Order: sequence, then C-alpha cells, then structure tokens
Amino acid sequence: MEKIIRMAHGAGGQMMNELIREIFATPLDNPHLRQLADSSVITLDLQTCNLQTCNLATYKPQLAISTDSFTVRPLFFPGGDIGSLAVHGTVNDVAMSGARPLWLTAGFILEEGLEIEVLERVVRSMAEAAREAGVQVVAGDTKVVEQGHGDGIYINTAGVGVVREGIAIGPDRAQPGDVILVSGTLGDHGIAVLSQREGLTFETELLSDSAPLNGLIETLLDAAPHTHCLRDPTRGGLAAALNELAGTSGVGIEIEESAVPVRPAVAAACEMLGFDPLTVANEGKLVAFVPPAEAEAALAALKQHPLGREAARIGTVTGEHTGMVLGRTGIGGRRVIDMPLGELLPRIC
Amino acid sequence: MEKIIRMAHGAGGQMMNELIREIFATPLDNPHLRQLADSSVITLDLQTCNLQTCNLATYKPQLAISTDSFTVRPLFFPGGDIGSLAVHGTVNDVAMSGARPLWLTAGFILEEGLEIEVLERVVRSMAEAAREAGVQVVAGDTKVVEQGHGDGIYINTAGVGVVREGIAIGPDRAQPGDVILVSGTLGDHGIAVLSQREGLTFETELLSDSAPLNGLIETLLDAAPHTHCLRDPTRGGLAAALNELAGTSGVGIEIEESAVPVRPAVAAACEMLGFDPLTVANEGKLVAFVPPAEAEAALAALKQHPLGREAARIGTVTGEHTGMVLGRTGIGGRRVIDMPLGELLPRIC
Repeated sequence: MEKIIRMAHGAGGQMMNELIREIFATPLDNPHLRQLADSSVITLDLQTCNLQTCNLATYKPQLAISTDSFTVRPLFFPGGDIGSLAVHGTVNDVAMSGARPLWLTAGFILEEGLEIEVLERVVRSMAEAAREAGVQVVAGDTKVVEQGHGDGIYINTAGVGVVREGIAIGPDRAQPGDVILVSGTLGDHGIAVLSQREGLTFETELLSDSAPLNGLIETLLDAAPHTHCLRDPTRGGLAAALNELAGTSGVGIEIEESAVPVRPAVAAACEMLGFDPLTVANEGKLVAFVPPAEAEAALAALKQHPLGREAARIGTVTGEHTGMVLGRTGIGGRRVIDMPLGELLPRIC
Repeated sequence: MEKIIRMAHGAGGQMMNELIREIFATPLDNPHLRQLADSSVITLDLQTCNLQTCNLATYKPQLAISTDSFTVRPLFFPGGDIGSLAVHGTVNDVAMSGARPLWLTAGFILEEGLEIEVLERVVRSMAEAAREAGVQVVAGDTKVVEQGHGDGIYINTAGVGVVREGIAIGPDRAQPGDVILVSGTLGDHGIAVLSQREGLTFETELLSDSAPLNGLIETLLDAAPHTHCLRDPTRGGLAAALNELAGTSGVGIEIEESAVPVRPAVAAACEMLGFDPLTVANEGKLVAFVPPAEAEAALAALKQHPLGREAARIGTVTGEHTGMVLGRTGIGGRRVIDMPLGELLPRIC
C-alpha cells in the first residue's frame, strides 16, 4: 500500500476501496458499517437501545440530529486529536438535546500528500472515542483534494440519537429562577490547542478537556429530569452559550464571575494573551439551567461523575435585562458579558 | 454585512450568528432548523411522513443513514452546482436503500476570502434542491479555514430516511437471473464538470444529470417491490458500481455494451479524452437488479418517469465468473470490465 494520500484515493475506484478496507474498516467495524451500502439501514429497536421506558406501541420516538465539521490545527494536541474531537463534538451536540447518541457518520476531506500513517492514527483515535462514548460510526465518505487545497484532514461527523422519554430540553425553555451550573473548569480546550499551535509552554501542562458528555448528562437527568437547557460551550465559550440561551429564551442571566471554575494555568495564559476565559472554547463541559427545586440534586449528581468533579453553581436566570448576560465581578461591580465578536481563536475545533 | 468570508465568520461569535441568520436561515427555513439547538429534535411520526403502511404499534421502523462530502471543482457547472449536488448526492444514497429521505444535515467548510454572494447562490440552490426532493435541512455547521487551505466551499451532507415496509435491498442480495437496468444515459455528470473545468466546448451543450432519484425509486419499487439491488453509479461510474455489487453478492455480471445508453456528445468526448464512459461519474442515474418476473414492469415504470425516460435493460446476473463483470462488445467479443483504478477524474463530486 502507498505511504501517502494521492488524488486516486478519492476517485471511487480500486485505490479508494483499498484505503477504506485497510484504514477505516477494521478499527471502525460494526454490522451497519459492514453493509458497505450507499446508506446504512438500521432497525430502530428502542429495547436494544436500552431505552426501555420507551414503548413503541404508545410512544412516538424523537430523534436528535446534529452535524459538526472539524478543522482543528494542529491535528494532534495535548489531550486529544481531530479524530477523538470529531466524535466528542457531535456526541455532545446530540446529548445536549437530552438524547442518547447512537450513530455517527464520518466524512473525511484529505489533502493529497497526507501521510497514511497520520490518517491511521486519527481513525484509531476516532474508533476508541466512539467505543468509549457507546456510539457506532455507521456511514463514511472520503474525498481527496489537491495539495494546497486542504490542511491534512478535515472531518465532518453527523450524529443521530433517540431522546429520553419525558425530557423537554431546548434553548427557548430557560425560566426566571433557574439555577445555572457548569460541569467543570472553563477554557482548557482552547488554551491547550493554542499553546500547542503557537509553541507556548506553561509550568503546568495544559490538556484539552475533550470528552463525551452523554454519560454525564444521563446522570444529570436522572437527578434533575426537569432540566430546561443544556449547552456545551464550544466555539465562543461560555459567553456565547449564555448569550444565545438568554436571547432565545427571552430571559436575563446573572453570573457570579468568581464562582466560574478556571484552572490557574488557563487564567494565567488568558491574562498573558489578553483573552477572557469566558470566551474560550471547551470540548468536554456543559452548562445546565435547572429549576431551583432540582438544583442541589443536579449539582451533587454532576460532582459524583468523573467528568463533573469540579462542577459549580455559577448564577441564575432572571426576568430582568432580557437577552443580556451580566457578570458580578470580584469587587462587587457588574459588567455586561457580550457575545464575542469571534476572531480571537480560529480553528480550535 | 461583510462582502467576503473572514476567519471570524467561523469562530462562534456575533459574526457567525449574523452569517447564519442572513445567509442560511431564510432559504433553508423549517421548524427543525429554527430550533437553533445543538441538535434538532424530530418526532418520528411515520403517519405524517406519509409512510402509512408503517404502523408503529406492530412495526419497528428502519432508518437509512448516509453521508457524503462534496469538493467539486468548479463550484458551478452546466446543469448544477455544489449546493444542488450536495443535496442530490445524499438524497440518492439514502434512497438507494429503498428509504424515503426525510432529513439532511449540512456542514460547510468555507475558505477565507470567499465572496458571500457566491455562498448565497450555493445555499439558495441547496434550498431549492431540498424542496424539490422533499427533504428538510435540519442541522448545520460552518467552519472557516485560512486562504490557501480550502477551495471556496466544501459541503458535507448527511441524510436520514425511513425504509419502506417490505423492502429488502442490499449490495449482497443480487441473484443469478436478475435483470440489470439503468435509468438513463451514462457519463453526463463527469464530462459536463470536466469540460467546464478544462474549458472544453462541444457542439451540443453537455449538462450534468444531477437530480434527486427518490421519486424515481418510489415509482420503481411500486412496480418491482422485490428489487434486489439499487446503486447510483457516481465516482467510478457504472464499472465501479457493478464490480462492487458482483463482489459483495458473490455473483457474475454480464453487460451488453451496445445496450448501455450514452449520449453521442459524451461518447465523442470520452473517445477524444481516452475515457471509458462506463467509468465516468453520474449524479442522477441508478442501476437496479430486478428479479426476471418483475423486470418488464420495472423498465416500464422507469420509462414513464421524467428522470427515467431513457432507461434500458443492459445485462444480467449469472452464477458464473463470480465477482467479475464481463462486457459483450459490438463485434461479439467479450472483455473484462475492471474496477477503475481511480485517478482519471478527480473532484467531480
């Protein structure tokens, strides 16, 4: 087999088949992918999906569908790589609807000249991440573009899941009085990728928080089934997530800035680089809006999960200053936390 | 609003939101996309999907899931563009499982500096193609890469559909005796894109055949419900499709080459350029393997549909020369139709 990707690997013939067989088929193997059909046919058997509270005879299942492309640079960074990130990102988007992610598709755009060994590492990492998250990659596609028209590997994943019965989560469902929780420290992913890209080193090694949040969400929803909103603060960070939820729900948000957990190394890097940690991307954190009656239980549930140990209550939803996010600063003042404009940290996911 | 794409349009903040609102939201609008959630939640109500023979109380629905990335160059070509192609390609992949395509996701990778007017045209074309095919774009994503790391626009679409009850189509189901039908002329898409890219002109204008085949397949399956295989001969053309089906089903295939419909202009272009029309891509054609008892009805059904007027019976499946595709040539000889190696026509889809 060739050692680098050539245009022919994307042209639908023998070389593409060989690439699929040798690089993709074994690590990602499952009965659906094995069909090698134009599309995978999957029986929606909610019993075998372990969604046993769903009874098809009385219940219309709800699907959650999502997509995300990944263009992160560099391909490998402390705590992850484009392969695991592409699984986590879409698993998390599906899970944020209160759904159990079940199936992913994966579309690769490869740049001519890419070392096949690099692709192999990325696919193995994807397979490992999918196993950990309990999802199957059921359909795939590979395209090759000429050298200078890509950047090694771009990956798109789309995800399909089934929503838990009795759950009604949406960006328009925040209510005044809701307690706002985050599942851990903010800004780790963005600063880890940036430091790798720019060759910055810190005393403490910074790792991306990239992780699948579906298990954490199941734990949370067991404890707080009336959770109103869930969001993963990726691009644009917590600031973007909160502004979107405030706008869509038509509510105000108040944050106690000192309550927002940020690692000292991330805080120091942000200070040095002039970033606000609230606008830096996360790939393994969630923000939850929970009615006050369930807030204690929700926070306790998050903290008992390995991915939520540093969860914290950071603020509340109010009926005032609709559409605005206010932060109470350490010295008792208040500032408006704006939607970031967006140009600070490109290509971190 | 800006006139060209900047890195900030992909960075999760205000500029990205503006882009989504102004360019994507209106043309692609539907209740699912309007949720603006991390994933779209869709109630799987087979009654409203008009799949009335499916009764959820007694029937476990089957989903068909597929993905395809589009890197065609140039973005606009005679008979289509990357937007309509991205809809047709995935609609067709889902339909090839005997499923009704219902929902698409769309992931855009944009190159910094792209004119926003170009993106607008592509999105409008996508919306128009989705309407024509009867599918909704329910989730989307936009990333921006630096100038020189993309090629204007790359699009990934993933598709989800629901399989018709009583249908069992798969690449492993070909049977000796099956009649092989194609739905029309071959090679139109590949030659149309290539001629546009290379500035070739022909006496007759050559148009891509890019089209949604879900309607044609419903017509076909009404007439021939025991159809064994369906495939759209895209990259690698009919030669790749037949070789894959012969290999997966463990059967032999015999084609009457003179029966394969090819437009004179395509035949002439292939002659000139040294291509075999059987290896050139199509984006609006299907090949069907139908049991002999249903073959007449299937061919008649194809021919009565606007997208199947030039359908033809081109060969049969045999129990001999397993895994091989043989072509009977005009002068009575036979040749092996090989899987193309693949490097002839890159980036035609």
